[in-house]
Amino acid sequence: MFVISAPSGAGKTTVCHRVLESIPDLAYSISHTTRPPRYGEKDGVDYFFVSEDEFLRMRESGDFLEWALVHNNYYGTAKRQISDCLGSGKDILLDIDVQGARQVRDQLSEAILIFILPPSWEVLEERLRKRQSDDEEALKLRMSNARSEVRAVREYDYVIINDDLDEAVRNFKAIVQAERCRRSRVIPSLNWLSISV
Amino acid sequence: MFVISAPSGAGKTTVCHRVLESIPDLAYSISHTTRPPRYGEKDGVDYFFVSEDEFLRMRESGDFLEWALVHNNYYGTAKRQISDCLGSGKDILLDIDVQGARQVRDQLSEAILIFILPPSWEVLEERLRKRQSDDEEALKLRMSNARSEVRAVREYDYVIINDDLDEAVRNFKAIVQAERCRRSRVIPSLNWLSISV
Repeated sequence: MFVISAPSGAGKTTVCHRVLESIPDLAYSISHTTRPPRYGEKDGVDYFFVSEDEFLRMRESGDFLEWALVHNNYYGTAKRQISDCLGSGKDILLDIDVQGARQVRDQLSEAILIFILPPSWEVLEERLRKRQSDDEEALKLRMSNARSEVRAVREYDYVIINDDLDEAVRNFKAIVQAERCRRSRVIPSLNWLSISV
Repeated sequence: MFVISAPSGAGKTTVCHRVLESIPDLAYSISHTTRPPRYGEKDGVDYFFVSEDEFLRMRESGDFLEWALVHNNYYGTAKRQISDCLGSGKDILLDIDVQGARQVRDQLSEAILIFILPPSWEVLEERLRKRQSDDEEALKLRMSNARSEVRAVREYDYVIINDDLDEAVRNFKAIVQAERCRRSRVIPSLNWLSISV
């Protein structure tokens, strides 16, 4: 299981799409959310869009591996999503925030945590300016949130600097490929070796 | 620091050459040995060829990071080799046996240990037959040594199966690239982040 987090504006979504396109047997975990769909987003593809009542009911039933409240909207990963993917022998990619990543790590110590950073605060601000129609106040809030989220990088295994997109994608792919060579993953598949890990 | 070991016949040397050709800033640590040069081997390139007296003198002086006695020949990695490479900001690749790898791991916990395996015992035996002019007795000894060396795989971080050479090289390169994205490697280089690891 690969968990990826990043402050808004680091380019996480683009990197993830590129990685998912090019790595076989890596499935994307679709989150549940109470936020309304944005233009072009499809239910069951980008997210499972649910009402707050439905989300809280699932949460009470213990259906979520992790959940978080971000900007007044709930986000969560259903345990069912994970078991379906892992059951089919695939690795799984979770695109979740730092609160969620912490919960995953606490429950699944073998999860690999990856953090994507912009090359500098200046570039992050520039990217946010380009992409958002925010006023100065909203931009300041986003930057301030980013500065606080980034402190969680200390809890992650890997850090990818998204300066050049191709390089960031190559690094992400290398991490997935390398983790698949971990002794604990390889040895159990070698029957002829007669060695336990 | 990357440490690589493998039983004879796993294809370690070829994999290492290919990796060293294609990864910048990865230097090969040249070992000292008391075994005589084979045809084509150059002093100071493949090994530093030294007398047993010289080797033992260096060992007494504490000049070696690790050393081992393999098939009646001494092999060792001079500390000087390591400090020269790391001082120039390069990563370093140590091609050493399982005894040496153990000593490195004990002294440098951040060393990354990689083990190369053949796809099966049958393939290993076939490769040894092709390449050695050994009689049956010598071949049996090599196979028996391989079976005993392979047990050390449990002490390694990564395992690469050398079935397809290109795939093995790709996996090795992915491991080096991924390890360069480790939080502990990346964060200290980011002055703008003002975060300690």
